Amino acid sequence: MSPSPRLEIFAVDGIGEVRPGDDLVGLLVDAKPKLKDGDVLVVTQKVVSKAEAQLVPIDPGDPQSKARIVDGESVRVLRRRGEMVISETRHGFVCANAGVDLSNVTAGWAALLPEDPDRSARRLRDGLRGRMSVDVAVIISDTFGRPWRRGLTDVAIGCAGIKPIVDLRGTADANGYELQVTEVCVVDELASAAEMVMGKATGLCAAVVRGVDPTWLGRGEVVTEVVRPAAEDLFR
Amino acid sequence: MSPSPRLEIFAVDGIGEVRPGDDLVGLLVDAKPKLKDGDVLVVTQKVVSKAEAQLVPIDPGDPQSKARIVDGESVRVLRRRGEMVISETRHGFVCANAGVDLSNVTAGWAALLPEDPDRSARRLRDGLRGRMSVDVAVIISDTFGRPWRRGLTDVAIGCAGIKPIVDLRGTADANGYELQVTEVCVVDELASAAEMVMGKATGLCAAVVRGVDPTWLGRGEVVTEVVRPAAEDLFR
Repeated sequence: MSPSPRLEIFAVDGIGEVRPGDDLVGLLVDAKPKLKDGDVLVVTQKVVSKAEAQLVPIDPGDPQSKARIVDGESVRVLRRRGEMVISETRHGFVCANAGVDLSNVTAGWAALLPEDPDRSARRLRDGLRGRMSVDVAVIISDTFGRPWRRGLTDVAIGCAGIKPIVDLRGTADANGYELQVTEVCVVDELASAAEMVMGKATGLCAAVVRGVDPTWLGRGEVVTEVVRPAAEDLFR
Repeated sequence: MSPSPRLEIFAVDGIGEVRPGDDLVGLLVDAKPKLKDGDVLVVTQKVVSKAEAQLVPIDPGDPQSKARIVDGESVRVLRRRGEMVISETRHGFVCANAGVDLSNVTAGWAALLPEDPDRSARRLRDGLRGRMSVDVAVIISDTFGRPWRRGLTDVAIGCAGIKPIVDLRGTADANGYELQVTEVCVVDELASAAEMVMGKATGLCAAVVRGVDPTWLGRGEVVTEVVRPAAEDLFR
């Protein structure tokens, strides 16, 4: 048995306000994050959306203004209650208000999800490799609710350089029996772990997870591998 | 702004096979975990259920045997597909097969969820305080699937000494706007983080998370605070 792993998780300080069109790789490099090969860098959706100018104007005086944006970002509405909509986005994510968010955004603007969050993650990863000569995995995280349980947790909406789901099916358990289903969504667990050092109101938007199992690293995408196709979903 | 936090996560080695009636506090103490006040100890459901003798005989030759146990542990069935049942347990958890599990259990037996996982957590916490003079929070974790996303993640099914949901509603965001909904389920994020150092097949059943925000510590229960009552649930 290999020695049990140890994870370290810490935020990247010193990234200021991100504005539309900003070079997010440059802001990350300037923050001088202490990155090592094999680290996982988790970056929150909000700053990725801002840097990619995924912002649309919203009329704060018109209550229908946000509803129209949410409708435009939704391909299917699952539930409505009051102003809250649970819908499916073009990417296949099921979340509140199609991921449209007004918090931590300049008044009069709403942030949309990145167009292709896996591509966003690949660009950050490639950019950091090019400018810091460091080989890290990147996860773009967002804060989602879920059925049946109160409270929000962070999940991955995009990734690069890491397999999102680690398949332990068929690995013998400690009694020698075959495990039947143990496909662990490690990118969601990493996003959740990173959220705990970033908080919501402190302006931190990136965190490093050090010590992940190197066998998790490799090619992978959230949209094609984590999003459950409607045909195999029991709740859509 | 306070300095950004740093989390450390490591497994507790040296806890052997747990058998019905075992003193789990004693096994934990004997493993000499390097616990400090303010740490969060995450313990997997399987060993808690074993120590509490939450085991029932199952006939491996009778395919209906497990189905009968799952039915007995369910108060409401949400979905069925083939042999898989998504149901609600007496505690209010919605999960596959009502949490009944055959992996890592002696052949001929199935493990049920603890009768009252928050009580289990309190007993572990009190026992460790009594025998190691250390004040830690305890989370009992289990591995659940979820709708819309592939892969499993660990969540908390019981806790003690920690508030399961940290309410940041009303805290000003970095732009001075009021955040509307940021109730973060930190016990689920902690369970997920701990899962990454335990794996599924290595016999590790406990992990320590060090460095959590001390304001999260306090009284709390998963069943009364995290389980979403059916009346406010859009997916039940």
